[in-house]
Formats: sequence, C-alpha cells, structure tokens
Amino acid sequence: MTSFGCLTFLTDFGLEDGFVASCHGVAARIAPSARIIDITHLVPPGDVRRGAAVLAQTVPAMPPAVHVAVVDPGVGTSRRAIAVRAGHSVLIGPDNGLLSWAVTALGGANEAVVLTNDALWNHPVSATFHGRDIFMPVAAHLFTGTELALAGTVVNVASLVRLAPPTSRMLDGEAEGEVLSVDRFGNVQLSIPTAAMQELGIRLGGTLVIRCNRRELTAPYLDTFGSAATGELIAFTDSAGLVSLAVTGGNAAEVLSLPPGARVRMAASSPA
Amino acid sequence: MTSFGCLTFLTDFGLEDGFVASCHGVAARIAPSARIIDITHLVPPGDVRRGAAVLAQTVPAMPPAVHVAVVDPGVGTSRRAIAVRAGHSVLIGPDNGLLSWAVTALGGANEAVVLTNDALWNHPVSATFHGRDIFMPVAAHLFTGTELALAGTVVNVASLVRLAPPTSRMLDGEAEGEVLSVDRFGNVQLSIPTAAMQELGIRLGGTLVIRCNRRELTAPYLDTFGSAATGELIAFTDSAGLVSLAVTGGNAAEVLSLPPGARVRMAASSPA
Amino acid sequence: MTSFGCLTFLTDFGLEDGFVASCHGVAARIAPSARIIDITHLVPPGDVRRGAAVLAQTVPAMPPAVHVAVVDPGVGTSRRAIAVRAGHSVLIGPDNGLLSWAVTALGGANEAVVLTNDALWNHPVSATFHGRDIFMPVAAHLFTGTELALAGTVVNVASLVRLAPPTSRMLDGEAEGEVLSVDRFGNVQLSIPTAAMQELGIRLGGTLVIRCNRRELTAPYLDTFGSAATGELIAFTDSAGLVSLAVTGGNAAEVLSLPPGARVRMAASSPA
Repeated sequence: MTSFGCLTFLTDFGLEDGFVASCHGVAARIAPSARIIDITHLVPPGDVRRGAAVLAQTVPAMPPAVHVAVVDPGVGTSRRAIAVRAGHSVLIGPDNGLLSWAVTALGGANEAVVLTNDALWNHPVSATFHGRDIFMPVAAHLFTGTELALAGTVVNVASLVRLAPPTSRMLDGEAEGEVLSVDRFGNVQLSIPTAAMQELGIRLGGTLVIRCNRRELTAPYLDTFGSAATGELIAFTDSAGLVSLAVTGGNAAEVLSLPPGARVRMAASSPA
Repeated sequence: MTSFGCLTFLTDFGLEDGFVASCHGVAARIAPSARIIDITHLVPPGDVRRGAAVLAQTVPAMPPAVHVAVVDPGVGTSRRAIAVRAGHSVLIGPDNGLLSWAVTALGGANEAVVLTNDALWNHPVSATFHGRDIFMPVAAHLFTGTELALAGTVVNVASLVRLAPPTSRMLDGEAEGEVLSVDRFGNVQLSIPTAAMQELGIRLGGTLVIRCNRRELTAPYLDTFGSAATGELIAFTDSAGLVSLAVTGGNAAEVLSLPPGARVRMAASSPA
Repeated sequence: MTSFGCLTFLTDFGLEDGFVASCHGVAARIAPSARIIDITHLVPPGDVRRGAAVLAQTVPAMPPAVHVAVVDPGVGTSRRAIAVRAGHSVLIGPDNGLLSWAVTALGGANEAVVLTNDALWNHPVSATFHGRDIFMPVAAHLFTGTELALAGTVVNVASLVRLAPPTSRMLDGEAEGEVLSVDRFGNVQLSIPTAAMQELGIRLGGTLVIRCNRRELTAPYLDTFGSAATGELIAFTDSAGLVSLAVTGGNAAEVLSLPPGARVRMAASSPA
C-alpha cells in the first residue's frame, strides 16, 4: 500500500465561486486528515494544454501525493474518468491528455483505472460537476488507503489519451521551439530544453541570436536575470530546466509580442 | 456538544491584502488544529446577495462546520453580530441576511445568539475589522468546544434578518426567474429550480423557448453541455439543482447579455 | 528552542502558475505537519515596499511563526538571503528590506543569519527560484526544530537592509503623510498614525481639513464608515492603527485620485 503526503488540486474553476471549496469539503468528509495543496484554479477555461504544463512542472516538487486535476470541457460526454499510478503518486482526472505530461514527469504510467466504481463517488452525481462528485471523492478514498484497482476497471496504460508534447527541434544549427507559458512577470518559457544550448555550443555568458515575429535580436545567455541591466533582454535556464526569455525589470512577453504557442528560433551568435 | 470537521470562510476581502490571513492567524492561535476551508474572498465588495448565494450553494458539500461569512457594509453600525445553529453546523457573521439562505440550505435555524461576550474576542477590537476581531475568534472558540450559548445573548430565530429569496414563479405556462449568478465559464445560473421543467412538461432532450432582453430563443434541455455542438445555446440542470444556460465552448452571459438580476422566462416549445 | 504555530508565506508569484504550490510541496516534504498560511501572492511584481507593508500589518495577528516572504527582483545577484529572529518568530527572505517593517512590528531583530548552509536547501538549486529551493526549505527545517544558527552565518543585525519607513510628520499644526496602500474597497490608508489626530486636537465626531492634489476637502473623523451617509467622505482609524480615508459605499482612492505614494495633509477644521 502506498502512503501519500497530500492531495493536490488543479482546475480551471476560478476563485470567485464556491466550486473549489465544495471539492475541499467533500474530501474533508472522506479523509479528514488529508492536506490539500491547491496548485492553481486559474487555468484559462478549457485550456487543457496550459493545465497539463502547469501540472507537469509542479508535481516534481510534491511529496508522494494523489494529484487531482480538472480541466474538462468534455464533462458529461463519453470521455473517460481515470486514475493513473506514476512513481509513488496517483493522478486523477478526465482522460483528455491533461494528466499526460505530469505522468511523464513522474516517470511514466505503471497502472491505469477507469473510474467506474460509483460506491466511491459523492451522490447524487451531477452531470456537470465531476470534480466534486467523482474525481475528488475517489482521490480522498485512495488517500485513506483504498486500493487503486478498487476504483474501477483496470485498463492498458497505452490506451490513455496523450497530448502531443510541445514541439522542439534542432535544425541547421538552430534550436526551434514554442512559447510554453508566460508567467506573471512576463517571462517567456520556451519548449527548448537547456541541453539544446550545450548542443549549440552556447555557454553561460555567451550571446544568442533569437528569431521570432520576423525580428532578429541578440541576448546574453545568463544564469539569472538579476545580473543584467534594467531593460536588457536575456536568456536563462528557468526553474523547470527550460530556456526562457526575460527583460530585467520589464515584461519580455509584451516587448517581444510572444503569446503562448508562438514560435522562436535560437542560434549561437557567430563571431562577426 | 457538537463536533466540527472544519471552519469555512467567505468574505469580500479580496486576495491582495493580508486581511484573510490575519483572520486565519487569529483562528490558529485559538484553535491550532482547526482546518480552514476558504470558500471565496472575491465576493464583489458589499454584495450581500452574491455572498449569500455562494455560501448557500457551498455549505451542503461541507462536513459539520463553523461557517464564517463576512460581507458587511454595515460594520461598526448597530447591525447585530450573530451565530446561528442549523443542522450540525453553526454560521457566524453580520445579521444582514448574508447567512439566511445557507441557514435554509442546512435545514433552518435551531438556535441564534447575538455575539455579546467579548471574552471570546480578539483585543483590541477595531471598529472596522470584525472578521479578525469578533467573527473568527468566536468561531475558533466554538470549534474548540465552547458552547454556542456562551457566545452571547440567545435571541429568537424569528428575529434574524432574512434576504428575500431570488424570485421564481410559474405564470401562464411559463417559468419566470432571475439570473442568480454567472460563473467563470459564462454559464448563467437561474433562480428556476429543475422541478419547474417537469411542471412545464419539459424532458431531457426536449426544446425550450427562452425569453429575455426582448429576444426569444430556443435551446435544447440537455443533461450536460459536453454533449452539444460548439457554439450551441443549451439549458441544463447545474450542480446546485437549478436551471442554467450555457453556450458550449462560449460565454452564455455575454452572448445573451444576462448579468446577475436580469429576468428570464422559459416555456416548452410548442409543436409548430 | 522555539516552537512555531505555523509557517506564513507572502510573495509576488501570482496565482496562475504552480510557483506557490511548488513551495508548499517542498515544505510538506520536510515538515509534513506544518500548516502554511498564505498571506498574499498578489504583491505587484517586484514591489518590495508594498510587500513589506502587507507583511508588517499581518504578522501581529499570527501565532509564533516562521514567516517566509519573497519579493525578490535581485534573485541570483549577490543580495543576501537571510533569516531574522524577532520576538517569538523568525522571518526569512531576501535581504532587500522586505522583512524590515515586519521585524519592527514584532519588536525588532534579536538574531540574524545569512543562509549559507546548503544542506538545508532543495537540490538542484535553481538560479531564479530561491523561494522553492532556499527560503521555503530552510523555513520548514526551522519549523521542525533546527536551530536558527545552523542555517548559516550569524551576522550583526545592524547589517540588515532596512527600508526607509513611510514618511509622516507634524508641521505647522498639520499632519503630513503618504498613501501607504489602497485596499479592495478603495479605502486609502495613510502613513499617519492615529496618535497624530490627538496631537492635532481632533476627536471622534470632529471635522478634518484634508489637502491633497491641490484640493481642500473636509471630512468628519468617525470611528467607522458604517455610520456615515452613502457617498460621504470620512476619515477613520483603520485596523492597523493608521488614519484612513473612505467614501461610504464608494471608492475613496478613485474619488480623490490617490494612488500609493501620494501625499496628504490633515488639520483640524478651524471654527469659522
């Protein structure tokens, strides 16, 4: 039997209604001692890729946990509700790819169950609020020691829906990637892993050529934005191990007009 | 003696200041083991009806609890501070109607006390922050086992201020109600209970005529928005048992120009 | 050995990403029983003075705690990471003045340590996310009983960076101060302590002359805004003991065009 340190909870429910709290309440009734760590509830409504990215970047910091995630534009359709064991944790949510990148971040799926055992659900089950009525109560039961296999029907992990990972490739001495996310500071996180910098022969302190929006810019590759001059564009490796762009004291996403999904290419600056 | 599973907390304090945290801190000093579930702190400033609606829809999901709610434009005036027992829970807040719909949702008031015992308060008591200095410390004392009657002066439950419930009526083969709330997805929750659909002879899969803003629209009555085409207007019964309008993949409140309070009428579509 | 009732957490990380949750996760791995009270994560990005003000006004309500605060535009530079004992609490964050007003509110610094013991950190340590990798894990270790001196190198408390306090002075029978903060209700908190009202001979119920933005207004000095007419400008002593301006049922900051930092003068109204 696995022992879990906490539940975590990520949704697109927002913070203005009582939806998140209702789920907390249902969990508190089933597992009074379970701590719930809210990851975020401000995923843009229905944005499964954004939810998947935040979840995947956050779960590595957690103790063994039951991770509940609900960004579920297909609630009430035939999309499956699933629980997936990965490493020492279990992830629960709709089978629409939302969990897939986090499963990978935790080492891959070992076991998967379609949630069909309604004895673990909150009744009456509404057609539109599976977070409260299916996902969270099942999670709380697993936290208290219920075996994963008792939650429903075991299915092949290969049958789970997977999101296509953000694209990133090396091409003609360039790394090409997409904007994965923009944080509150306007820092632009790219799908380019830090290893690509080494492959391009770019060292800390070196200079990059960045191509995006038909512009070409140069920026130093530094270990942190704190060491740059105010207003300077820099590239750095962020806390998730991905290459990111920042403007010190400014907003790189605005300055460069780079929303999530925009394409960016990078190369070493050739000695002129 | 009642035993409570948690405290809950709903306010219009917002999340940018330390107001909510100060209340958590006061509770932690009195009842170190009490878990607090935040319902929302984003009730529009002073909007007692909106606070009452969110509270009433959320408390049914909770374990027996002490529910603290503060939307209190009259703080510092002669409005009373009250604690009300309903079911296995106690609700605490200003006597301005904020608690009244939740009291009903929990089965009605069994006992009411005006908070006059300042031995349970946080001192010095400020004139403007009763959440921190009166409501939350009293709640924390009740959580630890202090009897309700010790919090102040017992009063007749009939003396409590009650908000007029959202209006809803059947008239000439139509159900008429008002927009109770709009959630983050733009779904429009009406004050029309699902029972009205049955009374109008409307079954799942049937078609409704909706009249609002001098427009007349038709929409299918479905069990969930997931089963409709993108962009389609539908009616469904939401997780609180109320008829709601949604546009799949869109924002019904914007499409229909329906803010909270707007009036809507519904009827069965007559076979043409 | 000090015993702490909770951790508290204040940042400018926002609520849309998983940054705050990652820190909670790291703490949960080190100190599973530690409750974390989030003060706010909506400090405007990089606004050290605003973070310092919210922290200082909130810590007095807390039990003995380890307070973690991260508003850290200099992350990754040579700015020091510190832990400071004040009263029965410890404050942890960057040495950029963020903690200084809260240290004063808790009675002043008794002991200070520069965080250099990386055995207490989360590895690998990123260059840009010291909240997750340094501040929070050190705080969690202190919560579990690790001695403060083991966190690094003891330094003289006089060496800590201190923010200049908000200015406030008495001049020619006037109190002059600045707008310290504007809350969600539009109430304007001034850096003028309530004692200044007594010094100016202004009693509750008396009338003030307020000078700001080249305008001169009069307002009653009341104990709470609840007792004024709707739309009326009033002055009152807020829950932090500072003179504040409010418009009952309205937004004083908008009506008076008073953003944080704006200067305001006050005097007793002379009997005409």
